[in-house]
Order: sequence, then C-alpha cells, then structure tokens
Amino acid sequence: MITGKTKTLAILADPVTHVRTPQALNQRFAEAGIDAVLVPLEVPAKALQATVNGLKACRNFAGFVVTVPHKTTVPAFCDVLSARAAAAMSVNVIRRGADGLLYGDLLDGEGFARGLERAGIEVAGKRVFLAGAGGAASAIAFALAARGIAALSIANRSTAKAEALIARLAAQYPALECHAQADPSDHDIAINGTSLGLNADDPLPFDPAALSKGTLVAEVIMQPEVTALLTAAEARGLRIHTGKYMLEEQLNEMLSFLTRDMGEVL
Amino acid sequence: MITGKTKTLAILADPVTHVRTPQALNQRFAEAGIDAVLVPLEVPAKALQATVNGLKACRNFAGFVVTVPHKTTVPAFCDVLSARAAAAMSVNVIRRGADGLLYGDLLDGEGFARGLERAGIEVAGKRVFLAGAGGAASAIAFALAARGIAALSIANRSTAKAEALIARLAAQYPALECHAQADPSDHDIAINGTSLGLNADDPLPFDPAALSKGTLVAEVIMQPEVTALLTAAEARGLRIHTGKYMLEEQLNEMLSFLTRDMGEVL
Repeated sequence: MITGKTKTLAILADPVTHVRTPQALNQRFAEAGIDAVLVPLEVPAKALQATVNGLKACRNFAGFVVTVPHKTTVPAFCDVLSARAAAAMSVNVIRRGADGLLYGDLLDGEGFARGLERAGIEVAGKRVFLAGAGGAASAIAFALAARGIAALSIANRSTAKAEALIARLAAQYPALECHAQADPSDHDIAINGTSLGLNADDPLPFDPAALSKGTLVAEVIMQPEVTALLTAAEARGLRIHTGKYMLEEQLNEMLSFLTRDMGEVL
Repeated sequence: MITGKTKTLAILADPVTHVRTPQALNQRFAEAGIDAVLVPLEVPAKALQATVNGLKACRNFAGFVVTVPHKTTVPAFCDVLSARAAAAMSVNVIRRGADGLLYGDLLDGEGFARGLERAGIEVAGKRVFLAGAGGAASAIAFALAARGIAALSIANRSTAKAEALIARLAAQYPALECHAQADPSDHDIAINGTSLGLNADDPLPFDPAALSKGTLVAEVIMQPEVTALLTAAEARGLRIHTGKYMLEEQLNEMLSFLTRDMGEVL
C-alpha cells in the first residue's frame, strides 16, 4: 500500500517496458517490511539530467536503478561514485543520501560474477570473450578481472571504446592478458554484454558457429530469458547461462544499498 | 503489480506524508483495471519547476496530482490550462497528453461543492465565509459562485491576495456580494480553505466562538479527519463537514481526467 509516507524510487531506462526490476525489487521491499516503491520511467537520453535533478530535489525520493542506455552517462549527474563505478565509468544504482547527495554504484558486474558462482561456474584462470564495452560489459570485465580470469578478449563495434576499457583494466590488473578481438573462438566463456537480443530483430552479438566446443555462453539480457544467441548456442550443444542470474544476485545488494539511509530520508 | 509497462504518476506536495490520494487513486486504478501507479514526491517550492520538467520528459509518465503549497505556482509549468484553472490561477491535476504536453485542471472546487451536495447541503442563496485565498480556497470560491451563493466573505492573512481573488470573482460573477472580511459571524457556511489544521500546533483559521448559531463549519483538511477547528465547532453544537467529502468526490473526476490519453502514453 503506497501512502504519503512511502519512499519513492525510479528505474531509468529507454525503452522501459521490458524491465523486470520493479516486480523483483518491490517484492523484496514488501518481504523486508520496507515502505518504499520503485516505479518505471522511460527517459530519453537528452532528458536524463533534467529527470535525475528533478527527482534529486524531492525529499522522500530514495534513489534510482539505472539501465540501458543511461548507465554510462548518468555518472556525471552523481555527487559521489564508488571506486568500481568510477573505474568502469558506469552506474546502475544511485542512492539519495540523507544529505541530499546522489551516491552512484555499479552492482551488475558483481551480480553477474556471483550469478556464475551460483551456477557452479569457476572463473579464475579462465579465458573469457566479452561482447560490448558499455556499462554492463565494463562492470563485468572489472568483476571478472578481480576474480582472477587469465585472459579477456573484448569485441565492440567501436574499437576505440574497447581500447579505452582495456586501458582502464590494464591500469588496475596488469597481469590480465587483455585485448580487442572480434573472434569468439578458443574461449572458456563467451558473454554478451551488449543490449543486442532485447529486440527480436537484433543481430546476434557474436557468431555462435565460431565458438569452440565446451564454451559456456552467458547473457546479460533478461527479457527474453532465452535470447536468440542462447537458442543458437544450445542448438550447437553448448552450455548456456541466462541473464536472470545476474538480476537475482543483484537484488539483495540493491536492496541493501538503496535502503542504507532510508530511515533518515524523510 | 508494478511492471515496466505501468504508467507512472506523482503527487507533488510539501509536506507529503499526510496525503491520502495515493491510497485512494491507486485503489481506483486497480478497480478500473488501469495499469498505473501514483507515488508521493515531497518537492520544495524552489524545485517545483525542475521536478515537473524532469518528469514531463518521461514517455511513460502520465501526470501529476498537485497539492499544498504548489497549486498556485504550478500553472506556470503547464502548457494548457482549463478555463476554471486559469480563472482561479490554480491547478491540482495535470495530465501528460499523448502529445507530451501538460494539461492543467482544477478539480477540488468542484469536488468540495459536490461533497456539500452529497451531504444534503444546499448552497444556492447562502451567505458563505471562506478562510484563505490560495489554491483550494480560490477553487472553492469559483465553484460556489457558479452554484449561486448570495454572498462570500473572504478572510486571508494577505488582504491583497483576498482582494485579487475578489476582483477575479467579480469579473465573472458580478451579482455575487463579495468582500474581504475577517469576522466569521452571520454566515450560513464557514469554510477553512487554508492549510491551517494540518499540523497539531497550527492556530485556528478563524474563531469558532464568533460563529452564529446554525452555521455549518466545513474543512478542506483531510488529515486529521476532525481538525481542531471542527472539534471546537462541534463543542459549540455546530454541524461540521469534514475534508474527506471533497477528496472522495474528486477521485472519479481525477481518474477520468488523468487516464484520458493513457492508451496513447506509451
């Protein structure tokens, strides 16, 4: 039951209709007895700053969940960034503190890595192929690097963006073998870290036919749960890992992060 | 269940904790099978424009309910005003049209007048005392004038604001006997149209001891349901009329107004 005492939060996305976080996070709020509600907002990129600032001004506003395409542009509108958000230049959750400031953090890399662990997939020492160099991909790259993968190949439409991510990774993880590469063959894990697969007519983020036998194919896309990429991988007999693992593992961390100051928000 | 397809609306107030519209309107949405949710936003006056514009930019945002203290300042941020909103220079509901424009209307005067009618109180020909000249008071003055009250005395801390309201009323209802007056005696109906009564330590909006026998005392304050003014009036043996009548009568009109373009919002 939403009342005048309820703390309000919003998920910023464009498009927004496919997001699953409102259902999932509102259920967690209810289970934890927290009087808060997350609502969807479909924000065009050019309006992102105005929307963030307009809600930041509201005293009972507790924070944002941020997703495609805003994760790499929203850090500029935060007051404080966590080290991992700053390293990846990407934010997917923003808490409005009791001081009225916006604290940005990036939980989806951690969520993705924990999702692999929950599925029993060891990442240390593995050779990983990653499609994408945007918000989710950057977060995943840093979380996997922190867990000791041996090598990371990054494929991105813009090579300059891939090289920039590689440079940031190299600065923090000099032992990691990391380079830009479009060929997904010869890897233990191949990850789609792009938004390709969200729409039915999207091209595949990489060619499943090029994957080596034994490669695990993992997704960040949550809806549809089994993307065209995963369907093609399964048809080749490869193990798949859906995007819902990442979402589920993130929810506890989001809940904890977003409600940290909630008693003091009003 | 809030999903990515849900249309979002917000009530703008300061303070916001006392508002009842979220419970009431969300229940109406559910009963009508409308996938929409109204959340509270506590907006400081200086941030009102930023908050309105930030949400106007969101494609799945359907509109605002507006209450104290924003009703008389928010018209400047609307694109189109109804005639009654323009006449009272006050807005309490804003629909975001399929064209992305903000349409402001003022339903609380109509709601208040219908609330009196539902309680069996005839207003035509009556002598009315009204405390306040802000958003709610202005709306009530116009709605009662339209129903043919004989006389209207307006008491307001700022006499200039009362005189401005009187001038606007006189322009539209030249037959109405209307003047600024602090003394509530010798009236059939005495109305609190201010926000005094919202807080426990507020002074009374007018002196119940000065009221004539037989005067009906009516409130716009909804929470507490029985204000200090109404308690004092009852102690004097006067009939009272609580603020919840106005709220209830407004809800159907709000529902109809806010959902008019909803099929086209997304």
